[in-house]
Formats: sequence, structure tokens, C-alpha cells
Amino acid sequence: MAGETVITVVGNLTDDPELRFTPSGAAVANFTIASTPRTFDRQTNEWKDGDALFLRASIWRQAAENVAESLTRGMRVVAQGRLRQRSYETQQGEKRTVVELEVDEIGPSLRYATAKVTKTPGGGRGGQGGGGFGGGQQGGGGGGWGGSSGGSGGSGGGYSDEPPF
Amino acid sequence: MAGETVITVVGNLTDDPELRFTPSGAAVANFTIASTPRTFDRQTNEWKDGDALFLRASIWRQAAENVAESLTRGMRVVAQGRLRQRSYETQQGEKRTVVELEVDEIGPSLRYATAKVTKTPGGGRGGQGGGGFGGGQQGGGGGGWGGSSGGSGGSGGGYSDEPPF
Amino acid sequence: MAGETVITVVGNLTDDPELRFTPSGAAVANFTIASTPRTFDRQTNEWKDGDALFLRASIWRQAAENVAESLTRGMRVVAQGRLRQRSYETQQGEKRTVVELEVDEIGPSLRYATAKVTKTPGGGRGGQGGGGFGGGQQGGGGGGWGGSSGGSGGSGGGYSDEPPF
Amino acid sequence: MAGETVITVVGNLTDDPELRFTPSGAAVANFTIASTPRTFDRQTNEWKDGDALFLRASIWRQAAENVAESLTRGMRVVAQGRLRQRSYETQQGEKRTVVELEVDEIGPSLRYATAKVTKTPGGGRGGQGGGGFGGGQQGGGGGGWGGSSGGSGGSGGGYSDEPPF
Repeated sequence: MAGETVITVVGNLTDDPELRFTPSGAAVANFTIASTPRTFDRQTNEWKDGDALFLRASIWRQAAENVAESLTRGMRVVAQGRLRQRSYETQQGEKRTVVELEVDEIGPSLRYATAKVTKTPGGGRGGQGGGGFGGGQQGGGGGGWGGSSGGSGGSGGGYSDEPPF
Repeated sequence: MAGETVITVVGNLTDDPELRFTPSGAAVANFTIASTPRTFDRQTNEWKDGDALFLRASIWRQAAENVAESLTRGMRVVAQGRLRQRSYETQQGEKRTVVELEVDEIGPSLRYATAKVTKTPGGGRGGQGGGGFGGGQQGGGGGGWGGSSGGSGGSGGGYSDEPPF
Repeated sequence: MAGETVITVVGNLTDDPELRFTPSGAAVANFTIASTPRTFDRQTNEWKDGDALFLRASIWRQAAENVAESLTRGMRVVAQGRLRQRSYETQQGEKRTVVELEVDEIGPSLRYATAKVTKTPGGGRGGQGGGGFGGGQQGGGGGGWGGSSGGSGGSGGGYSDEPPF
Repeated sequence: MAGETVITVVGNLTDDPELRFTPSGAAVANFTIASTPRTFDRQTNEWKDGDALFLRASIWRQAAENVAESLTRGMRVVAQGRLRQRSYETQQGEKRTVVELEVDEIGPSLRYATAKVTKTPGGGRGGQGGGGFGGGQQGGGGGGWGGSSGGSGGSGGGYSDEPPF
């Protein structure tokens, strides 16, 4: 897809993600991200909350299951996706339009939290078609970087491409 | 700061983050994100890796400590920050310029992984000045969403702003 | 303002911009940008239009007047701004929410067009408070780069900061 | 291309764009964008310039010719593109890496300037392969919105997709 409107949103989940499955078995998670800007008030010399932006978001497949397993109401997330518009009719026959975020990548923000990350089996290897880059690079002998494998000590797998500097 | 060049990068850490402290005690974590685009080759009908972008990144204060505790080499992350240019002289007296990312928000990507998230004490409350919004919103009686507080079940704190739809 | 959701939209104006003035005399221009993504259909081997995103946008002050003078229906633009949500009540008393773009910078895209650019008097000098950076840099004796000042030839003003490479 | 690092830069051209042609006849324009952030200094109560970011940029084909014809040194632009890294060897055999912007869309900013926009012949119709969306939408009988066609008066062509609100 070319020419899509890509956007990154930082905010808090207003509720736990809802996980559903399409008839064909594909997972989809839906949730709302509330993003609240802050203004610095020069009069009072302090920060004040601005109006929040509430953005409905969805994510698909394995990532949807990971989101449902990892994120809960109130958590602060960083999400990148594409802005979409969807039209529908209300029960009264009125036409409505909503703007939504089709999420490509999301993670819990580490600004106010730590995370214990575990790679999903098969993750990043081949993957779901539309899927990401990077899989093979994460390399690492058994199991990637998840779990209890200890420090980055060893050698073995690891990231082979040296950064060019 | 107005007029900065904001950018979101998705990629894999080339190494474990390095955590250091300034003389005044402020934490800073440095790391490199490798972002590899993919092209769809219409001839062969398959995806091919493009040239990776290696971006040096840094993050400050509590978030730096959280990054050092949570992220390791090879992990895929979503990072938002501001692009910065820094000039320096080599030992041979040559002037060099590097482009770096001053990270504002970063999290482990849930595309191929799950995460167990734990709020840092005091996280999002007051915070470090430049800090984020959202703290107070995450509400929740004791301890926010971290730890063992169980479901989003009750009551009490929780997210009070209702999304407007 | 910190923590706002910044977004760049590329698309076509659905109509001429509407220019209005607030009671205090501040100009504001309103318009809608239609952004249409395209998918490459591997079956038919050609590009197909996806669903358009229609985004209401507004811009303020001198820039609003410049937009009203320069842009017309159908033109392709590049616009950067902050995503905002606004709630209102319909005449039937229903609550509605719309997502809008508060534009900070916009220009006609040069992908399929050329532009003859003329600096507005006083432009970029001091400016409107929230205003931009760069003014002083554009330097140049009389009139900046607009109008008939001829080549970038001489001397005088010009861009003084040398790029560091 | 999926997974590229998309970025929008607002800044001033440090020089006139340089237009060249590849042996096969494809146009490419090169230029540098200087983007200067500003900080509000609470002590002095005024804005101060931060360190500028200088980003080398290139754009291809018809758009390159349009850029060379429309933009000159000092002008403020809005540019969206993909961040790229390029390695090369100096004459001394040292390896260097530069970060560059492969521009997809660029226009003169209307913050401090007006523009008289003229559609390039054939622009947005079919176009150059990698090209954009939107062509057909710009509709309009003969010649699109460029030139002297007067107001948006008529009817005829115009933008046919009604925004959904």
C-alpha cells in the first residue's frame, strides 16, 4: 500500500483490549488509545493537560493475540499505524464516519514502566505475509532473546550485521 | 521545543543498551536501532530485505533505566524521538557529523513478542519535568496497573475520562 | 504543547479553502484534504485506489491568508499538523465527535506541479508568536528570496550557517 | 517497500537545488534542508534557536525538475520522505556513512509565503510509475487547476468524490 497516512500515537489504553476472531480464524484486537497533550502555562508556570484525543485502534493476527496477552487498561503505549476512515449507518439510517488506527506496531512505553519481553514461538520467522522485517536478524540460537537465556554473553547467534560506524 | 524533526523508528537493537550516569546522577541509555525495509520483488514474487538504517539513539532519566532493564540485543522496538545532529572532532582533528535519535518514547514491539509490564514506582506521577502526560489518568488505587493487582475489575481508580463515542 | 499527535498528510483539496476572520481579526482557513492510498494488485499487476481518507483541516493567521490565496480545489498538498478531536452537539441534541487537523505547515506538492513562490512581507521575521523557526536564517538583504531579487548570486544576506559537511 | 522509516522535515534550503540527469535520462535533484528547532527559555521569556539539523535530500523524475524550477536557496519547505543510509569510502580509504532523505513529496511552505501553482502537463495522470495517487481525482477538464483557468467557478471536472460528512 502506498500513500497511506502513517501516524504514531502515544497514549493510554482506555480499557483492556478486546480480542475476537474472524470466521476464518484470524485474530483481531480492538482498543482505544487516549493521548493527552500538555501545555506549559507561562502564567502559572506549570503544565496543564490539554484535550485528549481518543483513537479507536485495531491490530491483526499474532500481534493481536500478543496485545491481548500483554496490555491492559491504563497502560501507556507507543503505536504506529495507518489512519483509516470507515463509514457506517446508524440504526436510524444516519450515515456516520469514524477515523480509526490500523496498527502495524505497538509496544508498552518504557517511560514509566519496565517490561519482561518473551518472543512468541516462530515469531519473526516467515511470519504472516504482510509481516515485518527483522525476523532473521534477531537470530540467536534457541529461542531468540526471550526467557531466561541470560546475558547477551555468549556469542552464537546474535545480530550479525555490524552497524557501519 | 518547537519545530523539531520528530520521527518514529521500528527496528531491532543491535546490542544491549549501555546505561551510564552523568556526574550529576542522571541516567542515560545508549543503543542502536537497525531498521530494515523490505521490497516486494514482482519478478520473483517474494519479499527481499533492503538496506538497513542504523540509528544511534539515547534516552534519559527513569526511562533510561527502564530501557536498560527491559531491552536486550536483537529485540524489536518501536521508538519515537527527535532527530539530532551532533558534530565532533576525530583524534586526527577531522570534523564529523552524526545523526542521532533523542528518544522520547520506546517500547518492545508486540508483533513477535509478548511483554509482562510493571509500572515503575512513582511512574507517571509528577515525573521529571519534561515528562509525559497521562500519569494521573492511569489512575488506579495503589500501584496503577503494574504488579499483582488483578483484573481491571473493580472500581476505584481506573480511567475516568470516557471516550466520546 | 508537548505530547501532541503530529501527523503529515498528503492529498488533494476537495474544495477551495474557506477564509474567515474571528471577531478579534485573526484569519483562519478551513479545508478538507482527501488522501487516497493505492494498493498494488499482484493478480492484475496494477495499482488500485484504496479508500480515501477525508480530513478536515484548519490553519491560522498569516498562513491562513497565504493558503487562501495560493491553494484551490483539486490541488495536491503536503500538510503537517496535530490531530485534534472536537465534540459538538447536533441540533437534535446528539453528541458527535470529529477528528480534525490543526495545520502547522502546508505547501503545494511539487510532484505534479511547479510553483512560483513569493515571500509575504515581514514573513518569517518575528512572526506570530507560535511561529516558526528559520526566519532569520532566510536572511537576504531586501525581500528575502521572493520577487525579483535575482539569483542567489551575491553576497549580502544569504544563508550563513554552513552545513557541517 | 514496507518498513521504511518515513519522516517529515520542515526547514529552509541551504542552497539552490542541483539538477542532474542519469545516463538513462532520469532527472534527480539534490539539496540540503536546514531545520532549526526553537526552545522557549523560561528565564528570559523568549524563544531561542536550537541546533540546526542539516539533512541532505534527493528527489527523482518529474518532481526533480519541478523542484529545480520552483525552489531556491533560503526557501522554507515541507518535505516527506524516507530516511536512508549510504556508505562510501573517502579518498583516504576511510569508510563513512551518511544519512539522507529520499523525498517523496515536497512543497514550499505557505507559512511565510504565497505560491502560484501550475500543474505540469500530464501531471498526475498515469505518471511515473512510482507515482502518486490522486491524479484522476484532480479531474478538471483541460489542464487541471493550473494556469489562468480562473476561479473554481465552472463545474465540469472538479473533485467528484464527496467527503463523507
